[in-house]
Amino acid sequence: MRPAGGAIPVAVPVWSVDPRTGKQREQVATEATAAEVDAAVRAAHATRAALADRDTRIALLRAAADQLEADGEAIIAAADAETALGTTRLTGELGRTTGQLRAFADEVADGGYLDVIIDHADGSLTPPRPDLRRYKIPLGVAAVYSASNFPLAFSVPGGDTASALAAGCPVVVKAHPDHPATSELAGAALRRAAAQVGLPEDVITVLHGFEAGVELIKHPLVSAAGFTGSIRGGRALFDAAAARPTPIPFYGELGSLNPVVVTEAAAVERAGEIGGGLAGSMTMGVGQFCTKPGLVFAPAGGAGDELLAALTKKVGEAAPGVLLDGRMREAFLAGVRERAALDGVETPVAAGPGEANTVAAGFLTVDADRLAAEGAHDLLLEECFGPVTVIVRYADADQVTAVLSRLPGNLTATLHLGEAEGAGEGGQGGRLLAELTPIAGRILVNGWPTGVAVTAAQHHGGPYPATTSTSTSVGATAIERWLRPVTYQSAPPALLPPELRDDNPLGLPRRVDGRREH
Amino acid sequence: MRPAGGAIPVAVPVWSVDPRTGKQREQVATEATAAEVDAAVRAAHATRAALADRDTRIALLRAAADQLEADGEAIIAAADAETALGTTRLTGELGRTTGQLRAFADEVADGGYLDVIIDHADGSLTPPRPDLRRYKIPLGVAAVYSASNFPLAFSVPGGDTASALAAGCPVVVKAHPDHPATSELAGAALRRAAAQVGLPEDVITVLHGFEAGVELIKHPLVSAAGFTGSIRGGRALFDAAAARPTPIPFYGELGSLNPVVVTEAAAVERAGEIGGGLAGSMTMGVGQFCTKPGLVFAPAGGAGDELLAALTKKVGEAAPGVLLDGRMREAFLAGVRERAALDGVETPVAAGPGEANTVAAGFLTVDADRLAAEGAHDLLLEECFGPVTVIVRYADADQVTAVLSRLPGNLTATLHLGEAEGAGEGGQGGRLLAELTPIAGRILVNGWPTGVAVTAAQHHGGPYPATTSTSTSVGATAIERWLRPVTYQSAPPALLPPELRDDNPLGLPRRVDGRREH
Repeated sequence: MRPAGGAIPVAVPVWSVDPRTGKQREQVATEATAAEVDAAVRAAHATRAALADRDTRIALLRAAADQLEADGEAIIAAADAETALGTTRLTGELGRTTGQLRAFADEVADGGYLDVIIDHADGSLTPPRPDLRRYKIPLGVAAVYSASNFPLAFSVPGGDTASALAAGCPVVVKAHPDHPATSELAGAALRRAAAQVGLPEDVITVLHGFEAGVELIKHPLVSAAGFTGSIRGGRALFDAAAARPTPIPFYGELGSLNPVVVTEAAAVERAGEIGGGLAGSMTMGVGQFCTKPGLVFAPAGGAGDELLAALTKKVGEAAPGVLLDGRMREAFLAGVRERAALDGVETPVAAGPGEANTVAAGFLTVDADRLAAEGAHDLLLEECFGPVTVIVRYADADQVTAVLSRLPGNLTATLHLGEAEGAGEGGQGGRLLAELTPIAGRILVNGWPTGVAVTAAQHHGGPYPATTSTSTSVGATAIERWLRPVTYQSAPPALLPPELRDDNPLGLPRRVDGRREH
Repeated sequence: MRPAGGAIPVAVPVWSVDPRTGKQREQVATEATAAEVDAAVRAAHATRAALADRDTRIALLRAAADQLEADGEAIIAAADAETALGTTRLTGELGRTTGQLRAFADEVADGGYLDVIIDHADGSLTPPRPDLRRYKIPLGVAAVYSASNFPLAFSVPGGDTASALAAGCPVVVKAHPDHPATSELAGAALRRAAAQVGLPEDVITVLHGFEAGVELIKHPLVSAAGFTGSIRGGRALFDAAAARPTPIPFYGELGSLNPVVVTEAAAVERAGEIGGGLAGSMTMGVGQFCTKPGLVFAPAGGAGDELLAALTKKVGEAAPGVLLDGRMREAFLAGVRERAALDGVETPVAAGPGEANTVAAGFLTVDADRLAAEGAHDLLLEECFGPVTVIVRYADADQVTAVLSRLPGNLTATLHLGEAEGAGEGGQGGRLLAELTPIAGRILVNGWPTGVAVTAAQHHGGPYPATTSTSTSVGATAIERWLRPVTYQSAPPALLPPELRDDNPLGLPRRVDGRREH
């Protein structure tokens, strides 16, 4: 795997950088060479049999949560130094991360994710039915690509890793360059947890480097990949996964506008609350959430004006913040400038550079008719990562429908309704809910999309480009991504795995001859 | 959608051809132009709201089965004239097809496929949990690509169509050129069924033509595709689906060797039965099943010789048969010639041309060590569609393991065990089952892979190239392919769809706050 000509590659250093100053903090690692990627994947592949034991996996996930907590102070300090997200937010994120790991341990114990279906032989049918028993088995080594904006919950110890390990898949993580020190610490905690429960440490490996990420998706022993990041990066990896001699599933979460529709009645009843809530949601985490509301439909006229006044006040009061890295800051500032320069776009609060390395939050307004047909204003329908949102002023429902019909897929869509509309009166609430459902994976009423609860009913995914698959990366059902069904036909009882035995020694929920048992 | 320059395309006729004579029977249709593909997809897209009603879909699926039965005589006659599969087989296939349609009606009525999960709001949690309710909604228009070898069960009225309609997805079928008349008759029956239950006929449309199939996969309003066919054709469409600006899921079933391992003990106990059973399975339907056993491991030595003697006798007795079309016949004869010419390959019964347009069944033998490493003999590890199989003679278990580890993914893998091995004695049965599980989707013991029961526990899929996804195209869970989850957060009860209401008016099985209800 060395370059042709026999030259020995020079190790490329991986630096931890402080986004508050732009200065290098320390060299954390070196970028993985192709040979190192290959070795990591092979070592991971060799741990599959060890990970097959369900009790060991349950113990691993719980030990991982414990180890992360034990190292919590150091991990949070490193993450804050590398991401400027602040210790309060990062403490919460660590809690979310350990909660996820423990929740997946519970899912493994529950076993419903195995989708056990048993159909006994039936000779009375035409043709006679043989004995068939179906459950799900792990796909193999999972490649996980970390997100910039969640150094824990969507990175090394995050939901992709937790769900893949829960499914029985060893994990090789490509760390995000915005937080290599945090990634190393989290990786070490996870490997220690593996050793503690008697598993090989190589059930989880952390690698660094852009090229390593490209090698990883192409490796023949990688069976699936999870990704959280940009549309450009995610699409490139999706394309590489699809172009392999043996294509693999690529579960990418790429980008989302997260439209919000505020009805006239909602604005009349709750202008101040909605304006203030929007300001909080769009500036949370310096606007660096994949669920940031990026396009908000507010009615023209007095009630909408009042909403904007509240928004203006609250956004104006928001303290400038530091973005995750310098490149992101440049992209944000350029994106805001380009959007603000469009005809008819106004900037009641101008997003822009703040002191030192900060940026200030802001928002833009535009009339809905500018977005009704293809044109330069389509830039406003693209995500702009950072603390900015676009307010679309509309005169009637048809304008909202026209713009909604032009939107790409989203993780979320939000509806703010008046009280009577929420009670089903007038039909407006139902109509809007029906219009938002086809374009998003999670539909909220009278709330804000930032904040994604980790629970069984969660769905964090949506039509492309929100995600590249129909699956979720948050919540219990995220485990489904790393499994495939297998059916045994007429296998003798002595050879059946315990999951498929008639006596159900593991007490799994299952469907037997059409009846559900649990 | 007309070619540049304004030239009006000449309609390309679609002929029904009799494979017994190679002669054209009648002109059935013309190939769909790009404009016709576009019109068909748009018309299908417009029927989504009508298909959303679950009772109507149940009625549609049952009416479709009734209409196919009403036209059964004409459909079977056309199918036999076009495919030479014989009326006995085609009568059985029609029964399988109507059974599938009715089984999916039952699945819709059951509603378990909606995967309803409800988590009520819980303010006592940190952070507080909002009310979240998840179920599955249809993806949109489904493109279905018919198979050559099942003019009914995997074609216009087949499993892909039935499961997509059950999910609520309108269907546009690209008919297979081997049976256009059958496709037209089946399509007419399905459209009549739609009209009968008050649905627009455009919930199902049949198109013809290779170029129409290429246009179809690229159409922006097509949301998913199902395919049964060759690796080359399936991979081309998979690549096109992945390369779209908005990629869509492509559920392709492409090709499979379906390995069979016969242990020494099995051969000693049941040489004659296994040899005879193999002959029946590999010649069934003139070897034109995707589950045909194409690579069979038989022990070297006396018991294996006896198995081969039984196989030789039975295959030699098999009547020559007509393949689905002339091109397939040429490919089969060339594939057999090329394989038989390899060093060390013997042909105890030579497959080859029979009288008129028939082919005679046969089999090849080769020593396992020829397949242990990459080389010219790898051709034997590629599917050869038609009545031929390859017998691999092995001296020990390591040789079997070595060859198995080199196989691509399969729909099925089969194990023939001795009585004690099946009872779990000696460990050989468990070891072999564990070796076969990673390379296939259905693992059989002491049976034959041809014949795929339509039931909830069925899995007809496997690692690439068996299928391009982790899903099945046969059995109840095939419906999952055409759905995506959506979660409603804090939606007022008055606006919730009935599937997600607390009072569960549809009586759906569901998971509520972690507890399963049914």
